[in-house]
Amino acid sequence: MRHLLSTQGIDRAAAIHLLDIAEDMADVGQREVKKLPTLRGKTVVNLFFEDSTRTRISFEAAAKRLSADVINFSAKGSSVSKGESLKDTAQTLAAMGADGVVIRHPSSGAPHVLAASGWIDAGIINAGDGTHEHPTQAFLDAFTIRRRLHGAASRGKDLDGVTVTIVGDILHSRVARSNMWLLSSLGAVVTFVAPPTLVPANPSAWPATIGYDLDAAVDADPDVIMMLRIQQERMHAAFFPNSREYSRNWGLDDARFARLRADSIVMHPGPMNRGLEISSAAADSAQSSVLEQVTNGVSVRMAALYLLLSGDREDS
Amino acid sequence: MRHLLSTQGIDRAAAIHLLDIAEDMADVGQREVKKLPTLRGKTVVNLFFEDSTRTRISFEAAAKRLSADVINFSAKGSSVSKGESLKDTAQTLAAMGADGVVIRHPSSGAPHVLAASGWIDAGIINAGDGTHEHPTQAFLDAFTIRRRLHGAASRGKDLDGVTVTIVGDILHSRVARSNMWLLSSLGAVVTFVAPPTLVPANPSAWPATIGYDLDAAVDADPDVIMMLRIQQERMHAAFFPNSREYSRNWGLDDARFARLRADSIVMHPGPMNRGLEISSAAADSAQSSVLEQVTNGVSVRMAALYLLLSGDREDS
Amino acid sequence: MRHLLSTQGIDRAAAIHLLDIAEDMADVGQREVKKLPTLRGKTVVNLFFEDSTRTRISFEAAAKRLSADVINFSAKGSSVSKGESLKDTAQTLAAMGADGVVIRHPSSGAPHVLAASGWIDAGIINAGDGTHEHPTQAFLDAFTIRRRLHGAASRGKDLDGVTVTIVGDILHSRVARSNMWLLSSLGAVVTFVAPPTLVPANPSAWPATIGYDLDAAVDADPDVIMMLRIQQERMHAAFFPNSREYSRNWGLDDARFARLRADSIVMHPGPMNRGLEISSAAADSAQSSVLEQVTNGVSVRMAALYLLLSGDREDS
Repeated sequence: MRHLLSTQGIDRAAAIHLLDIAEDMADVGQREVKKLPTLRGKTVVNLFFEDSTRTRISFEAAAKRLSADVINFSAKGSSVSKGESLKDTAQTLAAMGADGVVIRHPSSGAPHVLAASGWIDAGIINAGDGTHEHPTQAFLDAFTIRRRLHGAASRGKDLDGVTVTIVGDILHSRVARSNMWLLSSLGAVVTFVAPPTLVPANPSAWPATIGYDLDAAVDADPDVIMMLRIQQERMHAAFFPNSREYSRNWGLDDARFARLRADSIVMHPGPMNRGLEISSAAADSAQSSVLEQVTNGVSVRMAALYLLLSGDREDS
Repeated sequence: MRHLLSTQGIDRAAAIHLLDIAEDMADVGQREVKKLPTLRGKTVVNLFFEDSTRTRISFEAAAKRLSADVINFSAKGSSVSKGESLKDTAQTLAAMGADGVVIRHPSSGAPHVLAASGWIDAGIINAGDGTHEHPTQAFLDAFTIRRRLHGAASRGKDLDGVTVTIVGDILHSRVARSNMWLLSSLGAVVTFVAPPTLVPANPSAWPATIGYDLDAAVDADPDVIMMLRIQQERMHAAFFPNSREYSRNWGLDDARFARLRADSIVMHPGPMNRGLEISSAAADSAQSSVLEQVTNGVSVRMAALYLLLSGDREDS
Repeated sequence: MRHLLSTQGIDRAAAIHLLDIAEDMADVGQREVKKLPTLRGKTVVNLFFEDSTRTRISFEAAAKRLSADVINFSAKGSSVSKGESLKDTAQTLAAMGADGVVIRHPSSGAPHVLAASGWIDAGIINAGDGTHEHPTQAFLDAFTIRRRLHGAASRGKDLDGVTVTIVGDILHSRVARSNMWLLSSLGAVVTFVAPPTLVPANPSAWPATIGYDLDAAVDADPDVIMMLRIQQERMHAAFFPNSREYSRNWGLDDARFARLRADSIVMHPGPMNRGLEISSAAADSAQSSVLEQVTNGVSVRMAALYLLLSGDREDS
């Protein structure tokens, strides 16, 4: 793997390979000394054009656990605000010897531009670009589902036939998009549930069914229900009447949670708006995998950094 | 030691134990290679909800000298400003594998909430919470006094009978509180001197005498005089007439400094307002331990991180 | 070398020595594991009173490649904004055990004050002070020129007789000043070209010729042409009519670039204002050394850190 930009079009075998390496990395996290020398002497740059402390520290922890040197580059106060282009920034990082660049950018497609440009030879990981993709989030979600279903026997497994319902702001969610592509490639059956105002105009080519009725979706008995975060800025933009209305129609409240099968998996990418898209009872239940997702995020990001930066990096 | 939240109620033997380990750490700081492998593979998160560069870099230097990986988490621009609760932040850090969390928080008691919650298994160090406590500051002060009095023979010693006068904004000072508990536990005799508006309403249970007359306190010939920093925001809040008045009544000016015994110790937690609570002559004198306090801060924080994060961590 | 504050008055042999060590460091950058254990256990503080992400991460990469611990200290949100003096900041860093301090400061001369003060024993590197000097920039430029001219046979060489034309805002440029002193010490012949409003009042003691006509300077066939960045804030300050006018008179546009000798070297310290002081054709040409300058910046900064912080540090 040369870059990790997207999960769209990803090959099932390649996806399983990354998940299996993440299993090895999770084992490292159980050791007394949680550190591998694998990426010693490599430099990973966290190039964040948007604030995201959670994602940044997850990548930072992953890189450090592999003994890489980490340099945090927040676009605020940088040359970027002096008008430096993405091209010049990328070439500068390349010239300084960056082996990997983890990029978060408000513009959809920015990581692809970087990877396709030839400006930089480093491995590029998309850590969220606009409303487009967030592939490591999808991998950590797939990893979490696989572990819940197969436990220690997860290696080599896909998600054939697993039903996953993703609820919330599908229109703006890179998490929803990346999960849809990855989960369907792994054989899962994906359903989106959203207010009609928060669904893209023409998603007919998507490998997902779209519904508007969360109660019906709950009663359809999915294996996994994934609640998306409502961004504060959406609430003021007339996509739905108000937060109480949203919660009543599209929130996983206590009543809906009680109707789920006892071994269904409740997911959320965090940070949660407790009482809005998810109730605290649901979030803190044994069915909830919210914290496993965070833990698995470090393992999955270690796997991605390993695949991109170790000697075994492929050319395609 | 499982957490270091407070010095209130601390056992004299436990306090001496930490100080003795800090002596070992100070020895490491004298070596050619000032680094121990002790915490290799451990992750320390500096979780700062308030800016404090001095305290943050002291902990960062301490953790790195023990070979821990350090992740700085400033609450600005983080999920916290997106409404994430302390609970979710703590659980997220736990899930990412944080072994230690150094927390600075504007709310008194926040570190205790964190430690008592069960949200996170990591060792918690209170790096200052509201007007409540700042225990590592008290330990570095005690360490500094002990070293001044006993030099190379400090190990195992307490501060029995040492007289310490702490001057300034007692009402809002976590440094004053933490020092009072720790120093009195070690056997020292603590006196507070403050403007009447800057003393708590009912401190009768405190192991300290309260006075309002700095000249009398100076003439009482204390072994140690510790000047607290006046926060700029207090000056605009009518606690005292103005900074000249404060300096005249409660500042260690040149005249008062000259009346101190030549082997008394002049302390300040820094950063100093020179000419306000302390004159430059006092601050830069041989009696001043201001810079030793900074140096000792790294040793004491190494000791605390060692006690909390090494294999020897206790369960209580 | 005890500090690296300035290139003014630098000895030719000392300059060549630093450049030769940078050659060794550049070789390390070609290895599979780009890391030396040389500064293990040393602490380098990046003390930045002005934002400069590019310079900060170049020093950070250099220090980490030498295995030093790096602590970033941005003056924003620090005690400095609480009124702490440079003296107290310096003494605090010294007391914490900083072995090297990389300082960027808006006031010309601040690094010299620090070094001359006795407040701190650490090696000081000036990473840009006001309109005064930026010595590592000059060294990376000299290194780049030497490598372009002599390739693998660069070690030991000076720049005798090399003609260097530096174009732009000479009045405010620390890059121009540091380059002038270093390049002339190495034997190069320096010419400045600038709008009359952007030349200092009385530079007669400078080892450089001053002109105002870029076309004449281009036709004089220099070995090196170095374009300086125009700061946005200058554009609003009536030093020249407007950016189009600047570009037409003092920019390296396509027409002027075409008139340069094919083996002349085009330099820019970055970040570039493409289309203003330099055209994209010039910036991205084979003659351009812009990215080599960035790469060489890491090598030169490794050399400076090595000279200041390793056991071989000299006393003068």
